[in-house]
Amino acid sequence: MTLSRLDIARQFAEKHGLDLLAPLVIGGNYVPATEHHGVVYVSGQVPRVGTTVTALGRVGEAVSLEQAQAAAEVCALRVLAILEQQFGLERIAKVLKLNVFTQSAAHFTQQSEVADAASNLLAAVLGHDSGPHARTSVGVYQLPKNAAVELDATVALR
Amino acid sequence: MTLSRLDIARQFAEKHGLDLLAPLVIGGNYVPATEHHGVVYVSGQVPRVGTTVTALGRVGEAVSLEQAQAAAEVCALRVLAILEQQFGLERIAKVLKLNVFTQSAAHFTQQSEVADAASNLLAAVLGHDSGPHARTSVGVYQLPKNAAVELDATVALR
Amino acid sequence: MTLSRLDIARQFAEKHGLDLLAPLVIGGNYVPATEHHGVVYVSGQVPRVGTTVTALGRVGEAVSLEQAQAAAEVCALRVLAILEQQFGLERIAKVLKLNVFTQSAAHFTQQSEVADAASNLLAAVLGHDSGPHARTSVGVYQLPKNAAVELDATVALR
Repeated sequence: MTLSRLDIARQFAEKHGLDLLAPLVIGGNYVPATEHHGVVYVSGQVPRVGTTVTALGRVGEAVSLEQAQAAAEVCALRVLAILEQQFGLERIAKVLKLNVFTQSAAHFTQQSEVADAASNLLAAVLGHDSGPHARTSVGVYQLPKNAAVELDATVALR
Repeated sequence: MTLSRLDIARQFAEKHGLDLLAPLVIGGNYVPATEHHGVVYVSGQVPRVGTTVTALGRVGEAVSLEQAQAAAEVCALRVLAILEQQFGLERIAKVLKLNVFTQSAAHFTQQSEVADAASNLLAAVLGHDSGPHARTSVGVYQLPKNAAVELDATVALR
Repeated sequence: MTLSRLDIARQFAEKHGLDLLAPLVIGGNYVPATEHHGVVYVSGQVPRVGTTVTALGRVGEAVSLEQAQAAAEVCALRVLAILEQQFGLERIAKVLKLNVFTQSAAHFTQQSEVADAASNLLAAVLGHDSGPHARTSVGVYQLPKNAAVELDATVALR
């Protein structure tokens, strides 16, 4: 039996205690995603599960690389939850771009390794045709709610 | 009498001493906005009124949340000024994405609240159909001219 | 004799010891660029020549403005190398958006001047019709591999 993208995403989500079909809370006057001519712009996601941000503080200090990678997985799963709820994961033709922001200690330079956790998850869920994406990873000074990681995505639908 | 989008934008602009129809000064070798197949990419705007940047320094230290929110309004008005001058505000079908960068103190985590000021202004000017947008808010370490806030936008035309 | 875009780009690349046609190494689970309906999203580029990142540390401290500008040129050349190898530089209709991230000292505020080096190079290679772009420049706290500068681009093909 072939697993659907949603099945695979749910396996990852369960590991983090995240319900992909739960209503998404937005912390401001904006929307989870917009769509125009088949291109979807997904809002920046912090690693929130329910009402809890799962990793708080600077990566390289309060937060380890491994904890940041787990947080990046949660962010990526929230992107997938939004896409599932608004469009359906099967409609994703390609992840065009991923932007990953890591709240960094002064000398933490493994932002790419943090982002890889999100990239790997997207590839696992969406497969070799739709998952590979362009990416930008930077180290920022702070993030909303003191989140350790935030990421957003631009996605093409079919 | 129904107010046009430009009328509403001008009411906000007057509060900040900003003239939406004044020529926009660009501080580098780039353009205020590009357009391709009805999608407009607007350059990052700092809160400049005339030759003055209205909020300088880190939000949470030199700059209060309220001052940063006022600065975010100026940035959003500058985006609208560019769109008005190049395309006309009535042609905006939808704000697709807003990226908001707040020069943050080490422990300032209300980047979303800063960004809300810009989002609220866009919703007030463009209305419920065209205003709501996807958004990413991050806290950066510095910004050009020591500006407290910078934002850019991707916009669909009709 | 008219120089092609590749000819001009190579003249800049030689100055930095960069081979535009050498295979590009990607440091993570993503791709150099994605394309959808003629719009290309190029991944964030640090100023790597071969296996060396040419400018390491904070601009305004370990790295001078001039060194950062040279690094921004290398980043822009890497964007052009990706575009040449995947699509051919002659197919670039317009650079739509450039995002420039400068690893900044606490009081370094010349992020626009760093970005100008990249913008000038793109204009020189692609000409007045295709080169001018929208741009966002911010100062970040860290970058992958401790790079001083990183930039990405969105580009329209013809």
